[in-house]
Amino acid sequence: MTVTLKELAAEIGAEIAGEADAAISSVNGLAEAGPGEVSFLANPKYQKQLETTNATAVIVAPGVTAPAGRELNLLKTKDPYYAFCRAVVLLHGYRKHPHVGIHPRANVDPSATIGEGSVLYPGVYVGPRATIGRDCILYPNAVVYDDTVLGDRVILHAGAVIGADGFGYATRKDPDGVVRHHKIPQVGRVEIGDDVEIGANTCIDRAAVGATRVAHGTKIDNLVTIGHGGSIGPHCMIVAQVGIAGSTELGHHVTLAGQVGVTGHLKIGNAATIGAQSGIMMDVPDQSTLVGSPAMPVSHARKVYLLFTKLPELVDRIRQLEQQVEELSAAEGTEGK
Amino acid sequence: MTVTLKELAAEIGAEIAGEADAAISSVNGLAEAGPGEVSFLANPKYQKQLETTNATAVIVAPGVTAPAGRELNLLKTKDPYYAFCRAVVLLHGYRKHPHVGIHPRANVDPSATIGEGSVLYPGVYVGPRATIGRDCILYPNAVVYDDTVLGDRVILHAGAVIGADGFGYATRKDPDGVVRHHKIPQVGRVEIGDDVEIGANTCIDRAAVGATRVAHGTKIDNLVTIGHGGSIGPHCMIVAQVGIAGSTELGHHVTLAGQVGVTGHLKIGNAATIGAQSGIMMDVPDQSTLVGSPAMPVSHARKVYLLFTKLPELVDRIRQLEQQVEELSAAEGTEGK
Amino acid sequence: MTVTLKELAAEIGAEIAGEADAAISSVNGLAEAGPGEVSFLANPKYQKQLETTNATAVIVAPGVTAPAGRELNLLKTKDPYYAFCRAVVLLHGYRKHPHVGIHPRANVDPSATIGEGSVLYPGVYVGPRATIGRDCILYPNAVVYDDTVLGDRVILHAGAVIGADGFGYATRKDPDGVVRHHKIPQVGRVEIGDDVEIGANTCIDRAAVGATRVAHGTKIDNLVTIGHGGSIGPHCMIVAQVGIAGSTELGHHVTLAGQVGVTGHLKIGNAATIGAQSGIMMDVPDQSTLVGSPAMPVSHARKVYLLFTKLPELVDRIRQLEQQVEELSAAEGTEGK
Repeated sequence: MTVTLKELAAEIGAEIAGEADAAISSVNGLAEAGPGEVSFLANPKYQKQLETTNATAVIVAPGVTAPAGRELNLLKTKDPYYAFCRAVVLLHGYRKHPHVGIHPRANVDPSATIGEGSVLYPGVYVGPRATIGRDCILYPNAVVYDDTVLGDRVILHAGAVIGADGFGYATRKDPDGVVRHHKIPQVGRVEIGDDVEIGANTCIDRAAVGATRVAHGTKIDNLVTIGHGGSIGPHCMIVAQVGIAGSTELGHHVTLAGQVGVTGHLKIGNAATIGAQSGIMMDVPDQSTLVGSPAMPVSHARKVYLLFTKLPELVDRIRQLEQQVEELSAAEGTEGK
Repeated sequence: MTVTLKELAAEIGAEIAGEADAAISSVNGLAEAGPGEVSFLANPKYQKQLETTNATAVIVAPGVTAPAGRELNLLKTKDPYYAFCRAVVLLHGYRKHPHVGIHPRANVDPSATIGEGSVLYPGVYVGPRATIGRDCILYPNAVVYDDTVLGDRVILHAGAVIGADGFGYATRKDPDGVVRHHKIPQVGRVEIGDDVEIGANTCIDRAAVGATRVAHGTKIDNLVTIGHGGSIGPHCMIVAQVGIAGSTELGHHVTLAGQVGVTGHLKIGNAATIGAQSGIMMDVPDQSTLVGSPAMPVSHARKVYLLFTKLPELVDRIRQLEQQVEELSAAEGTEGK
Repeated sequence: MTVTLKELAAEIGAEIAGEADAAISSVNGLAEAGPGEVSFLANPKYQKQLETTNATAVIVAPGVTAPAGRELNLLKTKDPYYAFCRAVVLLHGYRKHPHVGIHPRANVDPSATIGEGSVLYPGVYVGPRATIGRDCILYPNAVVYDDTVLGDRVILHAGAVIGADGFGYATRKDPDGVVRHHKIPQVGRVEIGDDVEIGANTCIDRAAVGATRVAHGTKIDNLVTIGHGGSIGPHCMIVAQVGIAGSTELGHHVTLAGQVGVTGHLKIGNAATIGAQSGIMMDVPDQSTLVGSPAMPVSHARKVYLLFTKLPELVDRIRQLEQQVEELSAAEGTEGK
């Protein structure tokens, strides 16, 4: 699709600083963009690329100006990243699926319900009594176990597994003296709200009883695992390889960065943000930003980790103090005589 | 299935404190349970819920009594969690599979052997010469590479991959001066014992030579990876996202909590327990409980991590000491004159 | 295949110390090998096994001699591990696939291109306009999204997902006051070079714009995730469960050990090596070896982590210093009077 800069600006809510009639047909990164392409500058790290980009136009924040001597068309808006998002939707749109509805090689149990407009790719499995809402997309080989409920516009990327058995065993010494792990039937289910997107090969386990829940608007990246009985609030962001143990509850708008681990039976407050690789072993208050393993408030964690890397210096200082104190004690001893 | 409390108590080996004729037809959590449902109290964290639960009966430890003024039927037993497990099996049973035997859309090599009573869901792949024991369950899209051996009653959850090539390369500078990684054919296999359950999207690699082994009764959670030539003893618990590098041997009844990493060529002793996110780089003695990265005995680790979070305080104390010592030295110098 | 020791030695470039006519038909580990088998000794940790092995021959470094009193045939070569690799290829070869070409149960979009000699197992999905080079192997249920490009001799293990949408959302407060994550269409693609091998259930996301790239000769283990817009140089080794966030660039011959996390928009220099579980939050210079979270040069990290485990001792030393200084101050005060 090709539009003029004027049309694009109107669509994404930006002001033009430049040639309103320039033709734009696609989006690209600052470094890669060429004539006819629009790019964006949201991360100041890439500001220098304004001097060299071949893009026809760049979406920028209001304060940004074209580098001296460059005739670069700018589209100014308060939220360049969101404006870019709208530009991509306008110019490229979302994926066009090669087939509509349920692919003949998807495997859907006769007792499952699939909403109108939903797309099931080959190799998808939907088990007994599962319910898929409207306009969902289940990419190849995604698996939905029995009794799972997906809302509307849910996206499961390839290989995602929703509703597998929770990791639940009762361990005891059996009459023969051997300690064994006895499987507890996981008779609960998973319920996923509207507008949830779930990354490739991510696993969300069914509850032992009741439901594991992911509320509307939450986005989950690749290779995440969510344990049985957990509850994820609305509009959370859960980055790749996060692990959340069973029965933990997240509020709304929680962000867990990559590789975070959260133990079971905890409460993570609304709008909390947890830094990458952190380990969460205690409840987290609303609005807090934690980092580290164990997780600490971010400003404290920065000090702690800086000092951590300087431990050898600290030990040198202690050693020097010990020497000085020994000398002082010796002198004191001498004087005392 | 509906039973009386008396029947349930007999089945799970509990004593009734309450109405023996009450009818029970399902299990549920304390907070969610209603009339006709049995729940359990194993984690003291949830004791307060006894006051508000609508369950008809609750399985508890012998010392627990009903809250004052509440007519709550109790089922008393030494191991409430195991008793609950038996109640779930009695009332709900394990999953009823929508098909019996090998689904026509499972892909089984003609040279593979599948034991009686085993269920293969659609999208399952079983490669040449692989052997699947009796009463196994292979959920959708689980993959069993060539020559893999599964015992009886093995469960593979969706997307599990057993027997993919180990990560084995011989790296050398080739005659053209380029350093390349040369793939070593992985001619070994994977052998899984009886009663092993393997989580969704977990990967167990085949050995370079010989076998990667997982012994009977071991339970493995989602997204775990076990490297080539490893050996996992019987009755271990390996929680989600654990990574075990090649040729490492675990004894029996080892527990690895979530996201633990273990390097290669190690021995982890019998009944060892490793805390979440720990990094294991050395052999671990029998019975030990380690935590941290690097892993330390748990009582020591607790001190270390507490002090770690207090590093800024420690530095303040060092700084103050330095100042005091400087003053003392100055005074001493004055006196010495 | 059976060869004489002489033939084997010629093929793998080794010198024989022993019986040139001995027959060899397979490879095995030192502990497991029996008559007619060749093993190797590359890791000195296993040197003692030379005394007990039943192998007919062992590939060793030039300096190694047979244990006293043992008639053990040795094949001496500068790089025993590479020589072993060649022996495995000679005696066993790589996997013979049970079918040739595209299995009828693979799902290939009509607009995709599959090179000659490539093998697609059942359950594989290849999307619109994707290109697969020559002699590739796509194991069961591997998924290649639309527009992905694979070079020649690329191996995708079971469940690998190439080209799923990057984790890209524009978050903003919508006119109704709710903060939502708006999906940015990921209109880029993934390009994989020649001779790349990708482990089971590993995920490589397509770029938002442009391409996520993995250059030739790079080997990636199981359960790795690579974010949108990343670029991995040639001949890298990326071990299991590594997570690389978006737009990060790796040079050539980079090694990331297991469970490493790398944040986005970084540059990791050529031939850099990062230890297991490390967290990389800053650019990494060429040739550097880093360990830890935050990552530090390895020699420094060793000191830091050793001191970390000794924090309780350090605090004892500080406490003792405080006591001594107090005593000195008291004495000084007395003297000053």
